[in-house]
Amino acid sequence: MAERGVDAVGLSEITAAADLGTGTFYNYFQSREEIVEAVAEEAIESLGKRLDHLTADMSDAAEVFAFSLRHLVQHALTDPVWGWFTVRLGVAHPKLIAILGPRAARDLRKGVDSGRFTIPDLDIATSCVFGALLSTLHQVLSTEAASNIDQVYAQTMLSMVGVPAQEAQDVASRPLPRLPEASVSE
Amino acid sequence: MAERGVDAVGLSEITAAADLGTGTFYNYFQSREEIVEAVAEEAIESLGKRLDHLTADMSDAAEVFAFSLRHLVQHALTDPVWGWFTVRLGVAHPKLIAILGPRAARDLRKGVDSGRFTIPDLDIATSCVFGALLSTLHQVLSTEAASNIDQVYAQTMLSMVGVPAQEAQDVASRPLPRLPEASVSE
Repeated sequence: MAERGVDAVGLSEITAAADLGTGTFYNYFQSREEIVEAVAEEAIESLGKRLDHLTADMSDAAEVFAFSLRHLVQHALTDPVWGWFTVRLGVAHPKLIAILGPRAARDLRKGVDSGRFTIPDLDIATSCVFGALLSTLHQVLSTEAASNIDQVYAQTMLSMVGVPAQEAQDVASRPLPRLPEASVSE
Repeated sequence: MAERGVDAVGLSEITAAADLGTGTFYNYFQSREEIVEAVAEEAIESLGKRLDHLTADMSDAAEVFAFSLRHLVQHALTDPVWGWFTVRLGVAHPKLIAILGPRAARDLRKGVDSGRFTIPDLDIATSCVFGALLSTLHQVLSTEAASNIDQVYAQTMLSMVGVPAQEAQDVASRPLPRLPEASVSE
Protein backbone atom coordinates (compact mmCIF):
# COMPACT_ATOMS: atom_id res chain seq x y z
CA MET A 1 0.00 0.00 0.00
CA ALA A 2 2.86 2.37 0.82
CA GLU A 3 4.48 1.57 -2.52
CA ARG A 4 1.56 1.60 -4.92
CA GLY A 5 -1.33 3.29 -3.24
CA VAL A 6 -3.96 2.00 -0.89
CA ASP A 7 -6.61 1.39 -3.56
CA ALA A 8 -4.23 -0.55 -5.80
CA VAL A 9 -3.77 -3.45 -3.37
CA GLY A 10 -6.30 -6.27 -3.65
CA LEU A 11 -7.56 -8.49 -0.88
CA SER A 12 -5.89 -11.53 -2.44
CA GLU A 13 -2.51 -9.79 -2.21
CA ILE A 14 -3.09 -8.93 1.42
CA THR A 15 -4.02 -12.48 2.35
CA ALA A 16 -1.10 -13.87 0.31
CA ALA A 17 1.39 -11.50 1.96
CA ALA A 18 0.04 -12.44 5.40
CA ASP A 19 -0.09 -16.13 4.47
CA LEU A 20 -3.76 -16.21 5.43
CA GLY A 21 -6.74 -17.83 3.77
CA THR A 22 -9.51 -15.49 2.67
CA GLY A 23 -11.81 -17.18 5.18
CA THR A 24 -9.41 -16.48 8.02
CA PHE A 25 -9.10 -12.87 6.90
CA TYR A 26 -12.85 -12.48 7.19
CA ASN A 27 -12.71 -13.74 10.78
CA TYR A 28 -10.89 -10.50 11.58
CA PHE A 29 -11.99 -7.93 9.00
CA GLN A 30 -15.28 -7.37 7.18
CA SER A 31 -13.65 -5.85 4.10
CA ARG A 32 -10.44 -4.70 2.48
CA GLU A 33 -11.20 -1.15 3.63
CA GLU A 34 -11.35 -2.30 7.26
CA ILE A 35 -7.73 -3.45 7.19
CA VAL A 36 -6.67 -0.10 5.74
CA GLU A 37 -8.47 1.60 8.60
CA ALA A 38 -6.84 -0.71 11.12
CA VAL A 39 -3.37 0.00 9.73
CA ALA A 40 -4.06 3.74 9.69
CA GLU A 41 -5.36 3.59 13.24
CA GLU A 42 -2.30 1.70 14.44
CA ALA A 43 0.25 3.70 12.46
CA ILE A 44 -1.06 7.24 12.75
CA GLU A 45 -3.20 7.35 15.88
CA SER A 46 -0.30 6.01 17.96
CA LEU A 47 1.94 8.82 16.72
CA GLY A 48 -0.86 11.32 17.36
CA LYS A 49 -1.06 10.15 20.97
CA ARG A 50 2.69 10.49 21.46
CA LEU A 51 2.45 14.06 20.13
CA ASP A 52 -0.43 14.72 22.52
CA HIS A 53 1.79 13.59 25.42
CA LEU A 54 4.75 15.64 24.25
CA THR A 55 2.82 18.88 23.96
CA ALA A 56 0.23 18.49 26.75
CA ASP A 57 2.01 20.78 29.18
CA MET A 58 3.43 23.30 26.71
CA SER A 59 1.99 26.78 26.96
CA ASP A 60 3.04 28.41 23.67
CA ALA A 61 0.66 27.42 20.88
CA ALA A 62 3.25 28.24 18.24
CA GLU A 63 5.72 25.79 19.82
CA VAL A 64 3.09 23.07 20.16
CA PHE A 65 2.15 23.47 16.51
CA ALA A 66 5.73 23.65 15.22
CA PHE A 67 7.03 20.73 17.30
CA SER A 68 4.14 18.49 16.24
CA LEU A 69 4.58 19.26 12.54
CA ARG A 70 8.34 18.75 12.76
CA HIS A 71 7.92 15.34 14.41
CA LEU A 72 5.50 14.26 11.69
CA VAL A 73 8.06 15.15 9.00
CA GLN A 74 10.92 13.53 10.91
CA HIS A 75 8.88 10.38 11.49
CA ALA A 76 8.35 10.04 7.73
CA LEU A 77 12.09 10.41 7.12
CA THR A 78 12.94 7.86 9.81
CA ASP A 79 10.27 5.41 8.68
CA PRO A 80 9.67 5.90 4.94
CA VAL A 81 7.11 3.08 4.79
CA TRP A 82 5.04 4.98 7.35
CA GLY A 83 5.56 8.15 5.32
CA TRP A 84 4.53 6.61 2.01
CA PHE A 85 1.54 4.90 3.58
CA THR A 86 0.37 8.26 4.93
CA VAL A 87 0.96 9.99 1.58
CA ARG A 88 -0.87 7.20 -0.28
CA LEU A 89 -3.86 7.36 2.06
CA GLY A 90 -4.28 10.82 0.59
CA VAL A 91 -6.11 14.02 1.49
CA ALA A 92 -9.51 12.40 1.01
CA HIS A 93 -9.11 9.44 3.37
CA PRO A 94 -11.69 9.68 6.18
CA LYS A 95 -9.50 7.90 8.72
CA LEU A 96 -6.56 10.20 8.18
CA ILE A 97 -8.83 13.23 8.43
CA ALA A 98 -10.44 11.80 11.57
CA ILE A 99 -7.07 11.23 13.26
CA LEU A 100 -5.10 14.32 12.26
CA GLY A 101 -7.88 16.84 11.63
CA PRO A 102 -9.14 17.33 15.18
CA ARG A 103 -5.59 17.54 16.55
CA ALA A 104 -4.60 20.21 14.03
CA ALA A 105 -7.83 22.11 14.69
CA ARG A 106 -7.22 21.92 18.46
CA ASP A 107 -3.68 23.31 18.12
CA LEU A 108 -4.80 26.06 15.76
CA ARG A 109 -7.66 27.07 18.06
CA LYS A 110 -5.22 27.30 20.96
CA GLY A 111 -3.13 29.69 18.88
CA VAL A 112 -6.09 31.84 17.91
CA ASP A 113 -7.42 31.97 21.48
CA SER A 114 -4.04 33.04 22.85
CA GLY A 115 -3.64 35.70 20.16
CA ARG A 116 -0.63 33.95 18.68
CA PHE A 117 -2.28 33.01 15.36
CA THR A 118 -4.40 35.02 12.92
CA ILE A 119 -6.57 32.77 10.77
CA PRO A 120 -9.46 33.75 8.49
CA ASP A 121 -11.17 30.34 8.80
CA LEU A 122 -10.23 27.51 11.14
CA ASP A 123 -11.60 24.69 8.94
CA ILE A 124 -9.74 25.85 5.85
CA ALA A 125 -6.55 26.42 7.83
CA THR A 126 -6.84 22.88 9.23
CA SER A 127 -7.34 21.47 5.75
CA CYS A 128 -4.37 23.42 4.45
CA VAL A 129 -2.03 22.21 7.22
CA PHE A 130 -3.12 18.66 6.48
CA GLY A 131 -2.79 18.83 2.68
CA ALA A 132 0.51 20.71 2.94
CA LEU A 133 1.79 17.99 5.27
CA LEU A 134 1.05 15.23 2.77
CA SER A 135 2.62 17.06 -0.15
CA THR A 136 5.66 17.96 1.96
CA LEU A 137 6.02 14.32 3.03
CA HIS A 138 5.76 13.31 -0.62
CA GLN A 139 8.48 15.75 -1.54
CA VAL A 140 10.89 14.81 1.24
CA LEU A 141 10.39 11.10 0.48
CA SER A 142 10.88 11.41 -3.27
CA THR A 143 13.73 13.92 -3.45
CA GLU A 144 16.95 14.60 -1.57
CA ALA A 145 15.63 16.57 1.40
CA ALA A 146 17.64 19.21 3.24
CA SER A 147 18.43 18.20 6.82
CA ASN A 148 16.32 21.00 8.27
CA ILE A 149 13.29 20.29 6.10
CA ASP A 150 11.09 19.75 9.16
CA GLN A 151 11.95 23.29 10.32
CA VAL A 152 11.24 24.76 6.89
CA TYR A 153 7.83 23.12 6.78
CA ALA A 154 6.97 24.26 10.33
CA GLN A 155 8.15 27.81 9.54
CA THR A 156 5.99 27.85 6.40
CA MET A 157 2.94 26.72 8.39
CA LEU A 158 3.60 29.28 11.15
CA SER A 159 3.62 31.99 8.47
CA MET A 160 0.37 30.60 7.14
CA VAL A 161 -1.32 31.10 10.50
CA GLY A 162 -0.11 34.67 10.72
CA VAL A 163 3.10 34.46 12.76
CA PRO A 164 5.51 37.14 11.44
CA ALA A 165 8.42 35.81 9.34
CA GLN A 166 11.25 36.35 11.83
CA GLU A 167 9.27 34.94 14.72
CA ALA A 168 8.19 31.95 12.62
CA GLN A 169 11.81 31.19 11.83
CA ASP A 170 12.81 31.55 15.47
CA VAL A 171 10.10 29.24 16.80
CA ALA A 172 10.62 26.65 14.04
CA SER A 173 14.34 26.37 14.71
CA ARG A 174 14.16 25.78 18.47
CA PRO A 175 15.63 22.49 19.74
CA LEU A 176 13.06 19.77 19.15
CA PRO A 177 12.17 17.83 22.31
CA ARG A 178 12.23 14.06 21.97
CA LEU A 179 8.97 12.29 21.36
CA PRO A 180 7.88 10.05 24.28
CA GLU A 181 7.89 6.33 23.49
CA ALA A 182 4.60 4.69 22.57
CA SER A 183 2.86 3.37 25.65
CA VAL A 184 1.47 -0.15 25.39
CA SER A 185 -1.15 0.55 28.01
CA GLU A 186 -3.13 2.80 25.66
CA MET B 1 -12.06 7.74 -11.15
CA ALA B 2 -13.49 10.95 -9.71
CA GLU B 3 -15.84 8.90 -7.52
CA ARG B 4 -13.65 6.13 -6.23
CA GLY B 5 -10.06 7.07 -6.85
CA VAL B 6 -7.85 6.70 -9.87
CA ASP B 7 -6.21 3.44 -8.77
CA ALA B 8 -9.53 1.77 -8.01
CA VAL B 9 -10.74 1.77 -11.61
CA GLY B 10 -9.74 -1.23 -13.68
CA LEU B 11 -9.05 -1.29 -17.40
CA SER B 12 -12.08 -3.53 -17.99
CA GLU B 13 -14.32 -0.88 -16.43
CA ILE B 14 -12.81 1.84 -18.60
CA THR B 15 -13.31 -0.15 -21.81
CA ALA B 16 -16.84 -1.16 -20.74
CA ALA B 17 -17.79 2.46 -19.95
CA ALA B 18 -16.38 3.59 -23.29
CA ASP B 19 -17.99 0.62 -25.10
CA LEU B 20 -14.57 -0.34 -26.46
CA GLY B 21 -12.86 -3.68 -26.82
CA THR B 22 -9.61 -4.12 -24.94
CA GLY B 23 -7.82 -4.47 -28.28
CA THR B 24 -9.20 -1.15 -29.50
CA PHE B 25 -8.16 0.48 -26.22
CA TYR B 26 -4.59 -0.63 -26.82
CA ASN B 27 -4.64 1.02 -30.24
CA TYR B 28 -4.75 4.33 -28.38
CA PHE B 29 -3.15 3.75 -24.99
CA GLN B 30 -0.30 1.51 -23.86
CA SER B 31 -1.63 1.09 -20.33
CA ARG B 32 -4.29 2.08 -17.85
CA GLU B 33 -1.95 4.74 -16.47
CA GLU B 34 -1.66 6.36 -19.89
CA ILE B 35 -5.38 7.12 -19.99
CA VAL B 36 -5.17 8.68 -16.53
CA GLU B 37 -2.36 10.88 -17.80
CA ALA B 38 -4.34 11.82 -20.89
CA VAL B 39 -7.38 12.79 -18.81
CA ALA B 40 -5.20 14.78 -16.42
CA GLU B 41 -3.49 16.51 -19.32
CA GLU B 42 -6.81 17.43 -20.91
CA ALA B 43 -8.58 18.41 -17.70
CA ILE B 44 -5.89 20.25 -15.80
CA GLU B 45 -3.38 21.50 -18.35
CA SER B 46 -6.17 23.28 -20.26
CA LEU B 47 -7.21 25.13 -17.11
CA GLY B 48 -3.56 25.94 -16.40
CA LYS B 49 -3.25 27.54 -19.84
CA ARG B 50 -6.36 29.65 -19.31
CA LEU B 51 -4.89 30.86 -16.02
CA ASP B 52 -1.62 31.66 -17.80
CA HIS B 53 -3.58 33.82 -20.26
CA LEU B 54 -5.57 35.54 -17.57
CA THR B 55 -2.53 36.54 -15.53
CA ALA B 56 0.10 37.08 -18.26
CA ASP B 57 -0.13 40.87 -18.19
CA MET B 58 -0.76 41.35 -14.48
CA SER B 59 2.03 43.07 -12.59
CA ASP B 60 1.22 42.32 -8.95
CA ALA B 61 2.44 38.85 -7.98
CA ALA B 62 0.01 38.70 -5.08
CA GLU B 63 -2.94 39.26 -7.43
CA VAL B 64 -1.67 36.70 -9.94
CA PHE B 65 -1.30 34.13 -7.18
CA ALA B 66 -4.65 34.88 -5.50
CA PHE B 67 -6.67 35.01 -8.73
CA SER B 68 -5.21 31.70 -9.95
CA LEU B 69 -5.91 29.91 -6.69
CA ARG B 70 -9.45 31.30 -6.52
CA HIS B 71 -10.22 30.13 -10.06
CA LEU B 72 -8.97 26.63 -9.23
CA VAL B 73 -11.35 26.45 -6.25
CA GLN B 74 -14.25 27.93 -8.21
CA HIS B 75 -13.64 25.52 -11.08
CA ALA B 76 -13.97 22.59 -8.68
CA LEU B 77 -17.24 23.98 -7.33
CA THR B 78 -18.62 24.56 -10.84
CA ASP B 79 -17.46 21.17 -12.09
CA PRO B 80 -17.36 18.72 -9.16
CA VAL B 81 -16.29 15.81 -11.37
CA TRP B 82 -13.21 17.83 -12.32
CA GLY B 83 -12.69 18.65 -8.65
CA TRP B 84 -13.00 15.06 -7.45
CA PHE B 85 -10.77 13.79 -10.24
CA THR B 86 -8.09 16.28 -9.19
CA VAL B 87 -8.47 15.37 -5.52
CA ARG B 88 -8.33 11.64 -6.33
CA LEU B 89 -5.18 12.03 -8.43
CA GLY B 90 -3.62 13.02 -5.13
CA VAL B 91 -0.50 14.81 -3.98
CA ALA B 92 1.79 12.07 -5.29
CA HIS B 93 0.59 11.99 -8.91
CA PRO B 94 3.48 12.94 -11.23
CA LYS B 95 1.22 14.43 -13.89
CA LEU B 96 -0.53 16.72 -11.46
CA ILE B 97 2.80 17.81 -10.00
CA ALA B 98 4.19 18.36 -13.51
CA ILE B 99 1.24 20.54 -14.55
CA LEU B 100 0.59 22.60 -11.42
CA GLY B 101 4.02 22.57 -9.76
CA PRO B 102 5.97 24.71 -12.24
CA ARG B 103 3.13 27.25 -12.47
CA ALA B 104 2.92 27.63 -8.70
CA ALA B 105 6.72 27.89 -8.49
CA ARG B 106 6.75 30.55 -11.22
CA ASP B 107 4.11 32.65 -9.46
CA LEU B 108 5.85 32.31 -6.11
CA ARG B 109 9.22 33.27 -7.60
CA LYS B 110 7.66 36.36 -9.13
CA GLY B 111 6.42 37.33 -5.67
CA VAL B 112 9.79 36.77 -4.05
CA ASP B 113 11.66 38.68 -6.78
CA SER B 114 9.33 41.66 -6.48
CA GLY B 115 9.63 41.69 -2.69
CA ARG B 116 5.95 40.88 -2.27
CA PHE B 117 6.46 37.40 -0.76
CA THR B 118 8.77 36.12 1.99
CA ILE B 119 9.38 32.39 1.67
CA PRO B 120 11.98 30.25 3.48
CA ASP B 121 12.13 27.64 0.70
CA LEU B 122 10.50 27.83 -2.73
CA ASP B 123 10.16 24.06 -3.24
CA ILE B 124 8.47 23.49 0.09
CA ALA B 125 6.19 26.51 -0.41
CA THR B 126 5.22 25.14 -3.84
CA SER B 127 4.46 21.74 -2.33
CA CYS B 128 2.41 23.31 0.43
CA VAL B 129 0.30 25.40 -1.98
CA PHE B 130 -0.35 22.26 -4.00
CA GLY B 131 -1.23 19.98 -1.08
CA ALA B 132 -3.33 22.69 0.56
CA LEU B 133 -5.22 23.10 -2.72
CA LEU B 134 -6.14 19.41 -2.87
CA SER B 135 -7.27 19.27 0.75
CA THR B 136 -9.25 22.50 0.33
CA LEU B 137 -10.91 21.12 -2.80
CA HIS B 138 -11.72 17.96 -0.88
CA GLN B 139 -13.28 19.98 1.90
CA VAL B 140 -15.35 22.27 -0.34
CA LEU B 141 -16.59 19.26 -2.34
CA SER B 142 -17.54 17.15 0.66
CA THR B 143 -19.07 19.77 2.96
CA GLU B 144 -21.32 22.80 2.61
CA ALA B 145 -18.82 25.43 1.52
CA ALA B 146 -19.18 29.13 2.30
CA SER B 147 -19.70 31.23 -0.84
CA ASN B 148 -16.38 33.04 -0.39
CA ILE B 149 -14.36 29.89 0.19
CA ASP B 150 -12.09 30.68 -2.77
CA GLN B 151 -11.19 33.99 -1.12
CA VAL B 152 -10.52 32.32 2.23
CA TYR B 153 -8.18 29.80 0.63
CA ALA B 154 -6.33 32.52 -1.33
CA GLN B 155 -6.03 34.66 1.79
CA THR B 156 -4.63 31.69 3.73
CA MET B 157 -2.04 31.04 1.02
CA LEU B 158 -1.07 34.75 0.83
CA SER B 159 -0.43 34.65 4.58
CA MET B 160 1.67 31.54 4.06
CA VAL B 161 3.95 33.37 1.66
CA GLY B 162 4.42 36.24 4.08
CA VAL B 163 1.82 38.80 3.01
CA PRO B 164 0.57 40.60 6.16
CA ALA B 165 -2.95 39.59 7.31
CA GLN B 166 -4.82 42.77 6.36
CA GLU B 167 -3.14 43.00 2.97
CA ALA B 168 -3.80 39.30 2.32
CA GLN B 169 -7.49 39.82 3.02
CA ASP B 170 -7.60 42.89 0.79
CA VAL B 171 -5.92 41.20 -2.19
CA ALA B 172 -7.94 37.99 -1.81
CA SER B 173 -11.27 39.83 -1.84
CA ARG B 174 -10.72 41.89 -4.99
CA PRO B 175 -13.20 41.33 -7.85
CA LEU B 176 -12.13 38.17 -9.67
CA PRO B 177 -11.60 38.73 -13.40
CA ARG B 178 -13.30 36.18 -15.66
CA LEU B 179 -11.23 33.31 -16.96
CA PRO B 180 -10.69 33.43 -20.76
CA GLU B 181 -12.40 30.60 -22.66
CA ALA B 182 -10.31 27.60 -23.64
CA SER B 183 -8.79 28.11 -27.08
CA VAL B 184 -9.08 25.18 -29.46
CA SER B 185 -6.02 26.30 -31.40
CA GLU B 186 -3.68 25.24 -28.58
